[in-house]
Amino acid sequence: MDDSRIKKIKTETPLLIEQTADLFYLTGLTLSKGRLLVRHGKTTLFVDGRYFERAKKEAPCPVALWDEFKKVQEKEIGFDSAFVTYDGYLGLKKELPHTNWISKPNPIRELRAIKDEKEISALKKAALLTWKGYKHIIGLLKEGISEEELAFEFEFFCRKNGASGLSFSPIIAFGENGAYPHYRAGKTKLKKDEAVLIDVGAVVDQYCGDMTRVYFFGRPDPKIIHFEELVRSAKEKAMRHIKPGVKIGEIDQIVQDEFDKANVKQLYIHSLGHGIGLEAHEFPRIRYDGADKDVQLMPGMVFTIEPGLYQPGVGGIRLEDMLVVTKNGYENLFPDQI
Amino acid sequence: MDDSRIKKIKTETPLLIEQTADLFYLTGLTLSKGRLLVRHGKTTLFVDGRYFERAKKEAPCPVALWDEFKKVQEKEIGFDSAFVTYDGYLGLKKELPHTNWISKPNPIRELRAIKDEKEISALKKAALLTWKGYKHIIGLLKEGISEEELAFEFEFFCRKNGASGLSFSPIIAFGENGAYPHYRAGKTKLKKDEAVLIDVGAVVDQYCGDMTRVYFFGRPDPKIIHFEELVRSAKEKAMRHIKPGVKIGEIDQIVQDEFDKANVKQLYIHSLGHGIGLEAHEFPRIRYDGADKDVQLMPGMVFTIEPGLYQPGVGGIRLEDMLVVTKNGYENLFPDQI
Repeated sequence: MDDSRIKKIKTETPLLIEQTADLFYLTGLTLSKGRLLVRHGKTTLFVDGRYFERAKKEAPCPVALWDEFKKVQEKEIGFDSAFVTYDGYLGLKKELPHTNWISKPNPIRELRAIKDEKEISALKKAALLTWKGYKHIIGLLKEGISEEELAFEFEFFCRKNGASGLSFSPIIAFGENGAYPHYRAGKTKLKKDEAVLIDVGAVVDQYCGDMTRVYFFGRPDPKIIHFEELVRSAKEKAMRHIKPGVKIGEIDQIVQDEFDKANVKQLYIHSLGHGIGLEAHEFPRIRYDGADKDVQLMPGMVFTIEPGLYQPGVGGIRLEDMLVVTKNGYENLFPDQI
Repeated sequence: MDDSRIKKIKTETPLLIEQTADLFYLTGLTLSKGRLLVRHGKTTLFVDGRYFERAKKEAPCPVALWDEFKKVQEKEIGFDSAFVTYDGYLGLKKELPHTNWISKPNPIRELRAIKDEKEISALKKAALLTWKGYKHIIGLLKEGISEEELAFEFEFFCRKNGASGLSFSPIIAFGENGAYPHYRAGKTKLKKDEAVLIDVGAVVDQYCGDMTRVYFFGRPDPKIIHFEELVRSAKEKAMRHIKPGVKIGEIDQIVQDEFDKANVKQLYIHSLGHGIGLEAHEFPRIRYDGADKDVQLMPGMVFTIEPGLYQPGVGGIRLEDMLVVTKNGYENLFPDQI
């Protein structure tokens, strides 16, 4: 990997990168422990003996042994205060007592939000395998099968077909269990006429997939069918507005307004979506009143759109796609449009 | 679960517990987000809407909604500075500006180091399944099979037989790859007369297994056979000294001395072992010169013993068991003694 990503970091003060996904993004190396000190003209990667030889060959910048870090002389250094623990911060101060340590939470999240071609290609692979895994387990639905069994079958299918792992523990929820957005697959067994909510993701080439579908196993509660129509329609309306320049908050506002009109706004209890890439949840958060609401969409941004409606005692509907913003609109990373 | 574990926490100042495994240990609840404020006579668990109803039913202490936390009035509170990020610490100060926040890294690690009967039973299950998974993949060894394929077979076997996951990504190293203690399974294919280093662990009932064996596929380099004899003999010698009252550093010192006599001390490049339980690596670290070297063994402590010798270009040997300290000695959690 070359140093083009490192060069894109705009920082006045030197910046210390320690978070695993950030290190991979900038160096192409998988390091369980490493420190990249980004400085104009003299960026250095510090690793211990385990990684030294390989890093020297493959890193896009000079490499030094871990213990050399204490010789660094900088007046100030920014550190990732959203990643480094309080003890870690005390350790940095002790190692370089003459340095002024400045809090810089998630310092390269804006950079990572815009995916390049190689990243989009990996995300497409992750999306496609996730989708195939979904199709595979839909084929296994039968009365009496448990959520856990389906979760296992999904994982096994994906791992066998090229996934290095899952983006998160599968959410597979039968019937009323669908009312809890953070439910996990449990021991519940499938009954006739239930809705099956499936929220799953495979990791391919380090990038995460994330997709939610609801399959009707028979004929569920009419309320659920009504929710499905509302969610689908609000989602389609919101997606039609996705193109460069649009503010993130506006997209969720459309969904908010649609649900408001249908008198179900109080059943929509989470954000519309989130950036996705090396991690399942990345910057920005797509929410009408969130901290990122004024962030403008830009070509190369990849995020999920996943409106939902939830009613305890009844169940829930969530429909989720992964989209990449293009020059004039967006492309859905899944082969079917829901 | 009752509140007996919470009652065992000896703390003058109130203590804030947020780390996932600590929360599970003290409350029996699996919470992705939660705050347990341990106070004499009025411990409270704070959770958000997702967990509130269940926590009220199952928690061993009063439960409050997340937002109630800002009403807490305490002059000082200890926080887990080895877990809370620097931004998290700033957040705590902002939420309770009149509280003096005191750094208390890993506040209940000593408590968690002594396992009760239920925990030892879960650890035995995890060890047994890990051992069975090892036996299973040894049966699959053949020329041309890759490290990754074996890692996958191990995981699949364990998941199918009751594991909720793995303690860590399997280390399966053929031949020279064994020289790197933190190697992971890769694309290397097995050749005749290689040593196969297998370091794996299954999670059962939330508790971690961890085991390393080296299998000779044919007749490896005589150096490796010699290493194996040295490691086995040093390990046996060290284990004979394990009983309550012995200092942790002394156990590793025995291994250090044995390897010194054999002139291979420089090839022993890691600690002798580590505590194990809800997490794969827990307090204490078993090392002659480590921070925990003066900790005394006590009945109920469970840890690994895993001496090793490593030579780049040749390979490595590591033999690892899980032991529980008993009244008079120890019990090996694996059914075979190596």
